[in-house]
Amino acid sequence: MKSRKTFRTDYRISASSADEAKDIAESLCIEQSVEIPLDALPESAAGFLGRLSGLEPCGEQQWEAAIDYSTESVSGDPVQFLNVLYGNCSLYPGICVTGVDSVYLNTLLQGPSFGIKAIRTALSVPRRALSCTALKPIGLSPDELAERAFRFTKGGIDIIKDDHGLTSQASAPFRQRVTACVEAVRKGEQFSGKRTLYFPNITTSALTIGARFEEAAELGADGVMICPQLTGLETMHALARKKLLPVMAHPSFSGAYVLHPDHGFSPAFYYGTLWRAFGADMIIYPNAGGRFSFDAAFCKELNRRCREELEDFKPSFPSPGGGIDRTTVSRWLAEYGNETLFLIGGSLYQHPGGEEKAAIEFQQELEKNEQ
Amino acid sequence: MKSRKTFRTDYRISASSADEAKDIAESLCIEQSVEIPLDALPESAAGFLGRLSGLEPCGEQQWEAAIDYSTESVSGDPVQFLNVLYGNCSLYPGICVTGVDSVYLNTLLQGPSFGIKAIRTALSVPRRALSCTALKPIGLSPDELAERAFRFTKGGIDIIKDDHGLTSQASAPFRQRVTACVEAVRKGEQFSGKRTLYFPNITTSALTIGARFEEAAELGADGVMICPQLTGLETMHALARKKLLPVMAHPSFSGAYVLHPDHGFSPAFYYGTLWRAFGADMIIYPNAGGRFSFDAAFCKELNRRCREELEDFKPSFPSPGGGIDRTTVSRWLAEYGNETLFLIGGSLYQHPGGEEKAAIEFQQELEKNEQ
Repeated sequence: MKSRKTFRTDYRISASSADEAKDIAESLCIEQSVEIPLDALPESAAGFLGRLSGLEPCGEQQWEAAIDYSTESVSGDPVQFLNVLYGNCSLYPGICVTGVDSVYLNTLLQGPSFGIKAIRTALSVPRRALSCTALKPIGLSPDELAERAFRFTKGGIDIIKDDHGLTSQASAPFRQRVTACVEAVRKGEQFSGKRTLYFPNITTSALTIGARFEEAAELGADGVMICPQLTGLETMHALARKKLLPVMAHPSFSGAYVLHPDHGFSPAFYYGTLWRAFGADMIIYPNAGGRFSFDAAFCKELNRRCREELEDFKPSFPSPGGGIDRTTVSRWLAEYGNETLFLIGGSLYQHPGGEEKAAIEFQQELEKNEQ
Repeated sequence: MKSRKTFRTDYRISASSADEAKDIAESLCIEQSVEIPLDALPESAAGFLGRLSGLEPCGEQQWEAAIDYSTESVSGDPVQFLNVLYGNCSLYPGICVTGVDSVYLNTLLQGPSFGIKAIRTALSVPRRALSCTALKPIGLSPDELAERAFRFTKGGIDIIKDDHGLTSQASAPFRQRVTACVEAVRKGEQFSGKRTLYFPNITTSALTIGARFEEAAELGADGVMICPQLTGLETMHALARKKLLPVMAHPSFSGAYVLHPDHGFSPAFYYGTLWRAFGADMIIYPNAGGRFSFDAAFCKELNRRCREELEDFKPSFPSPGGGIDRTTVSRWLAEYGNETLFLIGGSLYQHPGGEEKAAIEFQQELEKNEQ
């Protein structure tokens, strides 16, 4: 086990001058550690003070600051890690977290339990990009949702996940929905002759999500989906550590952390590194050109981060979604390559030939590009 | 029990024209409910579609949109409520949540279990404003922290809370810290002749925080502190429902939701209404003029919201903090009035006469202004 006494965190600071940037960086060192004026800091706690180890200009009125925090201030608690990283300074304007010492991340967090390789093995698809769709909309009955799952499976789709708004509504209670959809997917596989994985959404109270995770496994689901920013990132990590089923992470409620360029987290670090470290086997992100607002360069970097070599972390499947049109798959394949799980929802449902036909064409597009 | 079929949510939308605002509002209706193109929406799910019930200009290039969502889409799950409120649309620029139908909030969420009155009763302080300080810094031993708690208690302070960075570090493990501090506070009360309440910070993994909450109660703590944005808001709500001890909410990791005026939540609604509805008996917010960046008008409105009459919710104690100077208490008293819990940390530790003297003066300032 590697160990360090401090870990480095990188912040991008917006300021009007180098002096101001230095003042802000020095404030961060205090705010995120001892949180007490230096003239009142007792000698015995001085080792816990954050230390500014680098400050360089990195753009117009922007500086990159490296701050070293004591690992003892975290003491192995991933929730406290987030607090040290971005707790109080989330209330400062102009502070963006861009990175954390990966060796330290790897001692604190386990990363994906399954990763790209295990998912490819489960599907017997060694090389090509994967297809994914969302069961929707909310309001349908378990049988209606299962019928859709059946048609997608018959068309050979790789992964079907619940829409993130499906929880355990009266219209489709969790147990009935998962039971019906697992059955429908297994039935559909008889027609397609290939595997399709079904991932129900288990997002709910952190105090009961563990039971729902186990219920999903018991009912035969092949993985689960979680919205980690709704449940708390650490809840996803704690569940992933059970190594029960692969975990797909959905970005609901997370936009506030990544949308403002001067504040929050850089999207590539947040989704591509942090969510991976917190145990996401698959990471859904809002693709460029869809309903959301990330640009293509950002998305490419985010996609790369999910898969890059990073200490002992398994790679996560990057999963662009949020409004990809089914006719543009080859364009995005050229952009991201085969190590990507394409999530297309609405556009498949709009296919005039129905879900099965839509899935067949989606698969053909991916197979065509298999190297 | 009141019941509704839909609940109203208010969004402030930034757009360049009324037409664009309407387009965005109509997108929200879909995005936050059925999340499927309307031409692919099955008849049986149409009742779940959000409905735009109002759109009015409310400032330069800003519109206030009211959207009605089906209560069945939430089905009583507070996590799913947050998803409907601000899940995917957190990834849209220019969307700010400003309010939710309070009758509905009151059917879904219980609010504070104790509220202002119970805290006043515990302290036997019926009218004046209350004082609070933070035990700090991280790095001190349980005995060193307890010694500080003793001196503050001797000086008659009302509430002592842990610094939010104190979790269960090796330097001060939870059990030893709470045991030592409870003992120190009870001893200090013998000198002051009045009650002082001690609130340890229980923020940790949502999967184990329940046990830490019970441990705090078992060890004799008078309340607890939680950072709800780190644990998930619903975790705070689930714990508050146990009615075990009062809950103080700390804004760590929440800044991204409230700092940008065009995006996220309006701070007054987020802290003053939503956190109250999610069970916070006391709500710490970053005060104007301190280390953070809210202005005085915002803070006053936020303070008012915590205490306003709101259905059957008990009022929460608004607790301004984050850099209040001990010499400015009377100014903030004039601003907020007596129904406020003033949190002063660093400035008390800087008092040349030590913590006891600092607490005595803090109390005198509050008593002077008792009406």
